[in-house]
Amino acid sequence: MNIEEFFELSAGKWFSHRTSHILASKESESGKSNIIIEMLTADLPEVMKLCQINEVNPSHVGCAIKVTGSSAIAGDKEKHSGTNILVSIPDADNPNQGKFLWDKGNAEKASVAGRYQLGSDEALTLTIESETISTQERLWFASPNLRMRVSVIKHQGGYSLTSFTSEIRMGGAPATAKAAPAANTASS
Amino acid sequence: MNIEEFFELSAGKWFSHRTSHILASKESESGKSNIIIEMLTADLPEVMKLCQINEVNPSHVGCAIKVTGSSAIAGDKEKHSGTNILVSIPDADNPNQGKFLWDKGNAEKASVAGRYQLGSDEALTLTIESETISTQERLWFASPNLRMRVSVIKHQGGYSLTSFTSEIRMGGAPATAKAAPAANTASS
Repeated sequence: MNIEEFFELSAGKWFSHRTSHILASKESESGKSNIIIEMLTADLPEVMKLCQINEVNPSHVGCAIKVTGSSAIAGDKEKHSGTNILVSIPDADNPNQGKFLWDKGNAEKASVAGRYQLGSDEALTLTIESETISTQERLWFASPNLRMRVSVIKHQGGYSLTSFTSEIRMGGAPATAKAAPAANTASS
Repeated sequence: MNIEEFFELSAGKWFSHRTSHILASKESESGKSNIIIEMLTADLPEVMKLCQINEVNPSHVGCAIKVTGSSAIAGDKEKHSGTNILVSIPDADNPNQGKFLWDKGNAEKASVAGRYQLGSDEALTLTIESETISTQERLWFASPNLRMRVSVIKHQGGYSLTSFTSEIRMGGAPATAKAAPAANTASS
């Protein structure tokens, strides 16, 4: 699988179930949401704008996806509505690693940049580093219809939060993706 | 890190925080426990017995560990008391992969066998296959004092359960381990 296939396989409608472990308090928090992931082309205004903010030439864009969170599931305290855009800017010598731009869609600190790497084990690692916080997220497919994500957040004092997300495809696999037919189960 | 160093780094006292996502019902379950992991030598009776049950020559044992769960944390519905023993039987040509034997310490189906593999990314994968169920667990250290585990369970009908465990070292790093000094935080 290359990075483009990873993004293509991510496209569709997913039920997303997230649990975070707060290391200091030993408590956990859960969130559930429905999300829609779509592939975007580099010539769309929102992709062009994200490139412009980050002073990146749009011709260097590898893949771009839009993640739309629908209303939170009943009983879930957190709201997940909103739209994120993620754009990959592959390294010239290796398209399976490079820079990524992420528009979180909220007003404050709306855009961040990080590094991505698709490993030989077909897991995608996203790393965001700032002066005070570093975030590393690992995403992989247990099957075409079950995507998993683990992230760790490190503050200056050490690791502070771990987070685990199971995402079950609820439909909408694109015709171009090398996925099994969309189904309401996570069957492989 | 080789497999022996992975086991050595696992030795100590840990706070273990687990969350399982039940894919069909979209519900989650959490459990917290204190566990103690100790290295065992191959000549101990419990290791010899586990080899005997599985018809393995004890001279082929690579590493052996004992995992003891202390009483469940207050407020936790599940009990985690009991003792597990895990023994690695390395492949002759590559000690970082091979068979493992696992004595779950309960009366029914007390002993199972599977395969282990320590990847170049220093993550340990344990795989157990039976006719009706397959379990794959990936374990890795975010830091010497923060161990993480993700497991997926697949029944005949497809994936049924995902599970995530964050383990924070609470002390007791062995003198032989290449760990940072034991601490009450997961700081690296």
